[in-house]
Amino acid sequence: MGLNNIRIVLVEPLYGGNIGSVCRAMKNMGLTDLALVSPSKGWYGPEARGMACHAQDILEARTEYATLAEAVADCVAVAGTSNRGGLYRGHAKTPRDGAPELLREAQRGKVALVFGREDNGLQLDEIKLCTHIIRIPSAPEYASLNLAQAVMVCAYECYLIGGDVEPIEEGSPPATSQEREVMLDKWARALDAIGFLKPGNEEHMMLGLRRIFSRGTLTKKDIQILLGVASQTLWCAGQMKKRQAEAS
Amino acid sequence: MGLNNIRIVLVEPLYGGNIGSVCRAMKNMGLTDLALVSPSKGWYGPEARGMACHAQDILEARTEYATLAEAVADCVAVAGTSNRGGLYRGHAKTPRDGAPELLREAQRGKVALVFGREDNGLQLDEIKLCTHIIRIPSAPEYASLNLAQAVMVCAYECYLIGGDVEPIEEGSPPATSQEREVMLDKWARALDAIGFLKPGNEEHMMLGLRRIFSRGTLTKKDIQILLGVASQTLWCAGQMKKRQAEAS
Repeated sequence: MGLNNIRIVLVEPLYGGNIGSVCRAMKNMGLTDLALVSPSKGWYGPEARGMACHAQDILEARTEYATLAEAVADCVAVAGTSNRGGLYRGHAKTPRDGAPELLREAQRGKVALVFGREDNGLQLDEIKLCTHIIRIPSAPEYASLNLAQAVMVCAYECYLIGGDVEPIEEGSPPATSQEREVMLDKWARALDAIGFLKPGNEEHMMLGLRRIFSRGTLTKKDIQILLGVASQTLWCAGQMKKRQAEAS
Repeated sequence: MGLNNIRIVLVEPLYGGNIGSVCRAMKNMGLTDLALVSPSKGWYGPEARGMACHAQDILEARTEYATLAEAVADCVAVAGTSNRGGLYRGHAKTPRDGAPELLREAQRGKVALVFGREDNGLQLDEIKLCTHIIRIPSAPEYASLNLAQAVMVCAYECYLIGGDVEPIEEGSPPATSQEREVMLDKWARALDAIGFLKPGNEEHMMLGLRRIFSRGTLTKKDIQILLGVASQTLWCAGQMKKRQAEAS
C-alpha cells in the first residue's frame, strides 16, 4: 500500500511539542517512519511525549541523523516542502497534485517527505537533495504553517491515496424510485385526509414536498419512517372523522 | 468567495494551546471567524497566545457562547465533525466530499464547522443541530486527531475550493517539440564528437536520453541550459581534435 515506505524527515526541529504532534499526525494517517536530522538539544521530554499522545511508539522508534543526506540516503524519491519560490522550487506541486506520484514511488522504495526548521524552512543545500518539491497552498496573509500542521496536511493527502479509506456508507441502502412513489402517494392521501391539501393547491404542495425529500438520497430506512408518519396520520384522520360522525 | 462566511466553532475546548493552534490554522487557510462554546476556565493565557503565533487577531476577535445552539443560530448550514457512526452520522462525508457543498452554502450565508471536545467529541444533542456531518478519514489504529489538526484538515479543504489558490507555475514556459528536437540533435552531435556514441549504440543511447529528458516537462530555460552543455562539449571536442592534429 506504500504508506509504510513513506518516511517523515524533520530537519533541525526545535520544539519537542512539535515533534510529538508530528508523531500523532503520522499515526492518525497510517505513517510510522520518523527520522530527525540534528534536532535541538533537550527536545525529548514531557512536551514531546504529551503531544504524541497515543503515538509513543512512533516517537520511540524514530531514527536520528547528523545530516539530511544521511537521513534520505536509501530513498528513491525525496520530497521537500517549501513556501518559497526560486530556481529549484519552480516545479513545486501542491500536496494534492504531488501525492499520487509519491505513493507510486513508494510502491518501489522508500520515499522521504522532508520538512524544514520551524523558523527557517529548508536551506538551498537541502532543497538540492530533493527530487520533488511540495508547496502547501495557504493564505498570503499568513503563509507559514506550524510544523506538525504541515506534516498533517501532507500525511492526510498520502493517506487518502495509500490508506485503507473505507467509503462512508449509509447503514441503509438507497430507496428505489418505486419506493419513493409509494411513500409520496401515501403522504398525499394522508395530507388530504387531514385537510392540508385543498383543491387547487394539491399539485403545488406535493411538488414542494417532492423537492424537500429530494435534497438528499432517501434510504429504505427513511422511506419506512416516512411511511410510518403517513400511516399514523391516516389513522388519526380516521379517528377524527369517526368522532365527527358520532358528534353529528 | 465564501471563506469569510465560514465560522469555526469549538465546543467546550479544554486547552488554550489547542485554541491558539486553531487560530493559526484558520489564518493559514484564510478563515477569520472563531466561536467558542463554554471553553474551560483559565484557557486564555501564554499557551494560547504562543500557539496562535501571528494569528493573535483571530484569537482576540473570537466570540463566546454558552451553548452550541446560540453559536450557530444565524448559520444556514451547520457541519459537525465526528468520528463515530450511528443514525445521525450515517450520512457523513469526508472533508473532500463535503467542502464543495459547504462553500456553496457559504455564498449565501454563514456556515458553521463544529468541533467537539478534545476528549469526547460532540454529544448527540449537538449532532442533532448539524445539517451536515464530516468525518475525517484516519487510520483505525489511531483515529482520533488532535483538535487543531482536525480543524486544519477541514480548513485546508475549504481553502482549496474557496481560497485564492494561485496555480504553482514554472517561471519559464514549457519548451515546444521543435525546441526539444533541436536540443537533442545538438546533444547527438556533441556526444558523437567526444566519442560517447559508437556505431551500433547510437540510436539506443539517444533513445535512453530522450527518455530521461521526458520524465518531466522541459522548459525553455531547461533547453537553454542543455544547449549550452552541448555547445561547450562540441567546443571541447574541437580543442581535443586540434591538439591531436598538432601532436601527430
